[in-house]
Amino acid sequence: MSETMRAMVVKAKSQEFTLEERPVPIPGPGEAVVKVAACGVCHSDMFAREGVYPGVSFPVVPGHEVAGSVHSLGEGVQGWREGQRVGVGWYGGACGWCRPCRMGALIACENTQIPGVQRDGGYADYVLVPAAAMAAMPEELAPELAAPLMCAGVTTYNGLRRTGARPGDLVAVLGVGGLGHLGVQYAAKMGFRVAAIARGTEKADLALGLGAHTYIDSTATDPGEELAKLGGARVVLSTVTNGDAVASTIPGLGVDGELVVVGAAEQPIPVPAAALIPINGSVAGHASGTAADSEDTLNFSALTGVEAQIETMPLEQANEAYARMMAGDARFRMVLTVG
Amino acid sequence: MSETMRAMVVKAKSQEFTLEERPVPIPGPGEAVVKVAACGVCHSDMFAREGVYPGVSFPVVPGHEVAGSVHSLGEGVQGWREGQRVGVGWYGGACGWCRPCRMGALIACENTQIPGVQRDGGYADYVLVPAAAMAAMPEELAPELAAPLMCAGVTTYNGLRRTGARPGDLVAVLGVGGLGHLGVQYAAKMGFRVAAIARGTEKADLALGLGAHTYIDSTATDPGEELAKLGGARVVLSTVTNGDAVASTIPGLGVDGELVVVGAAEQPIPVPAAALIPINGSVAGHASGTAADSEDTLNFSALTGVEAQIETMPLEQANEAYARMMAGDARFRMVLTVG
Amino acid sequence: MSETMRAMVVKAKSQEFTLEERPVPIPGPGEAVVKVAACGVCHSDMFAREGVYPGVSFPVVPGHEVAGSVHSLGEGVQGWREGQRVGVGWYGGACGWCRPCRMGALIACENTQIPGVQRDGGYADYVLVPAAAMAAMPEELAPELAAPLMCAGVTTYNGLRRTGARPGDLVAVLGVGGLGHLGVQYAAKMGFRVAAIARGTEKADLALGLGAHTYIDSTATDPGEELAKLGGARVVLSTVTNGDAVASTIPGLGVDGELVVVGAAEQPIPVPAAALIPINGSVAGHASGTAADSEDTLNFSALTGVEAQIETMPLEQANEAYARMMAGDARFRMVLTVG
Amino acid sequence: MSETMRAMVVKAKSQEFTLEERPVPIPGPGEAVVKVAACGVCHSDMFAREGVYPGVSFPVVPGHEVAGSVHSLGEGVQGWREGQRVGVGWYGGACGWCRPCRMGALIACENTQIPGVQRDGGYADYVLVPAAAMAAMPEELAPELAAPLMCAGVTTYNGLRRTGARPGDLVAVLGVGGLGHLGVQYAAKMGFRVAAIARGTEKADLALGLGAHTYIDSTATDPGEELAKLGGARVVLSTVTNGDAVASTIPGLGVDGELVVVGAAEQPIPVPAAALIPINGSVAGHASGTAADSEDTLNFSALTGVEAQIETMPLEQANEAYARMMAGDARFRMVLTVG
Repeated sequence: MSETMRAMVVKAKSQEFTLEERPVPIPGPGEAVVKVAACGVCHSDMFAREGVYPGVSFPVVPGHEVAGSVHSLGEGVQGWREGQRVGVGWYGGACGWCRPCRMGALIACENTQIPGVQRDGGYADYVLVPAAAMAAMPEELAPELAAPLMCAGVTTYNGLRRTGARPGDLVAVLGVGGLGHLGVQYAAKMGFRVAAIARGTEKADLALGLGAHTYIDSTATDPGEELAKLGGARVVLSTVTNGDAVASTIPGLGVDGELVVVGAAEQPIPVPAAALIPINGSVAGHASGTAADSEDTLNFSALTGVEAQIETMPLEQANEAYARMMAGDARFRMVLTVG
Repeated sequence: MSETMRAMVVKAKSQEFTLEERPVPIPGPGEAVVKVAACGVCHSDMFAREGVYPGVSFPVVPGHEVAGSVHSLGEGVQGWREGQRVGVGWYGGACGWCRPCRMGALIACENTQIPGVQRDGGYADYVLVPAAAMAAMPEELAPELAAPLMCAGVTTYNGLRRTGARPGDLVAVLGVGGLGHLGVQYAAKMGFRVAAIARGTEKADLALGLGAHTYIDSTATDPGEELAKLGGARVVLSTVTNGDAVASTIPGLGVDGELVVVGAAEQPIPVPAAALIPINGSVAGHASGTAADSEDTLNFSALTGVEAQIETMPLEQANEAYARMMAGDARFRMVLTVG
Repeated sequence: MSETMRAMVVKAKSQEFTLEERPVPIPGPGEAVVKVAACGVCHSDMFAREGVYPGVSFPVVPGHEVAGSVHSLGEGVQGWREGQRVGVGWYGGACGWCRPCRMGALIACENTQIPGVQRDGGYADYVLVPAAAMAAMPEELAPELAAPLMCAGVTTYNGLRRTGARPGDLVAVLGVGGLGHLGVQYAAKMGFRVAAIARGTEKADLALGLGAHTYIDSTATDPGEELAKLGGARVVLSTVTNGDAVASTIPGLGVDGELVVVGAAEQPIPVPAAALIPINGSVAGHASGTAADSEDTLNFSALTGVEAQIETMPLEQANEAYARMMAGDARFRMVLTVG
Repeated sequence: MSETMRAMVVKAKSQEFTLEERPVPIPGPGEAVVKVAACGVCHSDMFAREGVYPGVSFPVVPGHEVAGSVHSLGEGVQGWREGQRVGVGWYGGACGWCRPCRMGALIACENTQIPGVQRDGGYADYVLVPAAAMAAMPEELAPELAAPLMCAGVTTYNGLRRTGARPGDLVAVLGVGGLGHLGVQYAAKMGFRVAAIARGTEKADLALGLGAHTYIDSTATDPGEELAKLGGARVVLSTVTNGDAVASTIPGLGVDGELVVVGAAEQPIPVPAAALIPINGSVAGHASGTAADSEDTLNFSALTGVEAQIETMPLEQANEAYARMMAGDARFRMVLTVG
């Protein structure tokens, strides 16, 4: 008789999560089963709940910010041992045979298996993943703090380190929320001069406390002008989804300035070429990161003390956690505790 | 009694060029006077004629695609000799003391002196420029063929070489006109797999003759889809100014794909973040080049046989040449012959 | 009863190749069997014959410059079909779980399976490889011409394209032999200004015919000085193995100059720091390439007409071919024809 | 009657510094006179004292680590005001017309005017420099602490930021002395995982206190092996001058690893190509930095609290300070206080 586990499942488009009892999965060749200790609730869980992402089929267990430990390993898996602390994020391994994979651009694999979206994820006691999806989790990090780093963390950390910004450069973070409050911390620990941009004055103290050197209230001043006064930003990391808000920072880019977009804007970003040409500036998308990138994120966070601000709820309250996150009330990441 | 020269002058906004007799200029410290042999007519001459560029004041002599030779050198100029063959382009030297200059980003100098726009240019027998604005012109190039390379040439050559594209990569050139017909040639001589994109079938043979491996008619097919079928472009060099046309190529970018915009679009380019994120793609502006970049352009053109297709008219017919260029009738660059 | 095939085998250290009859291999999961049409003879075959490379165990079939077609595919292999034209080189796939693999640095995999060295290679009618080791071979290339591109070709092509050199820059190729005669061609087709450096005058015409713009006889002049006179090289691609000869080019590097070493020198290269510091110069090793890199090499060669100069012998004459190659008599690559 | 000042002068090769009274210089066009508050004593002052650097002519006033304020400005100088706090380092401006200057590679200018070596430097009450040699000095930094950052600081800060290392990567600093004790601090503040390497155990606590995460005693263990155990260094910043010691770290480089050499080794560095090839590794020289780089160094130091450890002596004791520095007794930089 097989072991059983709990899972919060979306049975049909737009329905609430339902608690189900399921057998604990058995890993096939190259696979691993992770015992979940905590799982973050991310805005992108909406892709599963609403069934809008390519490859979603119901029922599906959401959750791509998993922290836990290796429960069992399938045949041929190397480099991991049972009991090892691990995280799993948006990256669910790579097919190995498409063109991007063969070039080593694993993040751009054309045959993704996104945990919690294209296959069952971490809103459960256990989750079955390709072994390649796992990132080693350092001892220093508690699972509920590591979980949000597997998506919100790696997206901002990796998004910043992949740019041409160098220590001492002015880097702005647009939005101080689930992603932005991590982005500000990472930017500061990377040695950048950090400007945080958000709406209103409410988040000013928080942003400065997280390491920002300047706070810009985008309701009171023009963020592009303010950045230009500071000498022009080498990088703006945009964590917001309003195209006009994103574009408003472009006049604040300096020479070789990069506007890095990590959140898919609802509407196209209106990009004025005339503002980019004289500075050789650019607007770039950034695609989260691989399991190795997540591992780097966890290690960097442990090394430098970057920490997510979280609210926790038990697995069974996934619906409440999700609602709170979608309403923008979370300060700043919701995390489900499991087991 | 001073020597005199002819110059075609714009006396007031939107007026035609008027022939004037003026004294040949005397170079001050750090300056040079260039005897003009040929001067290209560029769409950007409109900036002077219409007085819409910052720093334009009437009367002004247009012309920033100059080919000629050193007539006289001011005090303290080093590295040049009288009689030496030279070209002068959009780059009019750099101030040396602004932040970009001190960083070596000369093209982003904050105190530009653009020949033919912010100071008198090459629609004349002689032109006075900072010595730093001059590029050595190799013997192999006739002045009327070198002239358009000083702006249309350096913009496309430099725009392509500054990207991350590597020999063998798919590079698309959007637009086969004054800039694009050079861009196609440069891309081919750089070892790229070249796709030329233009409206209609009229330019197909020309593009293939210039070295394109594929021609895409954007009125018959979707250029983004066509590029995707070819594996995705590492770079699209956009030489057109319609924002929607520029954006239509974004879905055709491959992993790390760059859309490089060298012409300031009339309207903002509507950039869909969701298309850039999964591929780590970007939309970048590119700012022509310095005198050293122009020199590299001329040398590369001489080395590999890249040649502008031109129509020539004498200096006195500058109004006709300008009208023909603005009407889009030039095949492909108008050049004024002088002297 | 199984099919049989011929293989040229090294049974013990330093022994000649012996013809053996063996069963045609059966591919396991993720593997492929390639029907060999031609196999290049490379200086690195010495690693197998002399048993000096880590992981060699006798008996071993040498050969890592394979051109042929897919004979059979193991379970789960995707992206390939039987009969497809393919090549196999030094890259034998990557383990997928070591740190470099997880980062996408497949070429630096810590668990290599080098065909013809660490596992049986292409001196045979058939060769069994991980499917990931295969590169698609374009129709335009005859197998005997494609074979040497799988090692000598990808090493030089990839070595050049990975540098910071841009079209028009001065690139020198040190040595005009098996690797160098390809390096000169690739450099020319990439739009570089090419200087070929070799001992004596014998190879001058050849080098110029292959696309070099300058030939430097290192027995008559100092190559470092000559390159400096030409303005300084952005890249020197060194294909020779004498440490002093390699180092002699360092004074010929220009600003940001890179000396790229693709052949393991017998003795350490004596690098004078004082020559590198003022120019921010560097001496770098370059590690061949992956199967995707080889595919790019084949495609670029077909696109631009780069062709290896070869001498062919039938498989049975592998000993003669090897001896001729080791004696330095080959003009320029020995290739075994098979079947 | 002109104002006079004190200067410590080298009158002939290898002679001690002699105190002289001289007129305060008057700045010509493009020049500035800096009132010196402090001047660091650097090992490279030896180049002047021993007359071994190209372009040294006696008598000469050494000193290229100047901190002070603008005393007077020559004609045409823009961007500076009298009384402004400034530093001057090894970079004495750039000619503007050589090829590297025209490319924007100001640090590689072929017509250098190195303060304290090729023209009079900062061992004096006042120093005359091209205005382009000045870096703005932030209020937060005391002159005696800013002075050593103008050479030792910019060399290590700039050397680290120009590499491909990204926050979280393992970066080693070889040597914990005048340069190394700054390199360790910069590396830590840039978010690297830092390994400090020095001879003996004496400097272990210091290095860890400066931010190193690991200390390697190169007399007790093999630094290459130790770095390899830590996963391989992305960058080794070498501040020592013994070629063999420098080379001993090469086996400790990881994938794409860079050994950056900022001190001209006495003997060539014996570089084993076989160690660089499989990792695409490199050995690079690094050339200090421009005035803008120095400005970035000062700003970064003020932002992050990086501080040189210094011993001060008054200008008149320049001989004692120099002797102490040359003997290796300084902890860690000698600084002359002036005025």
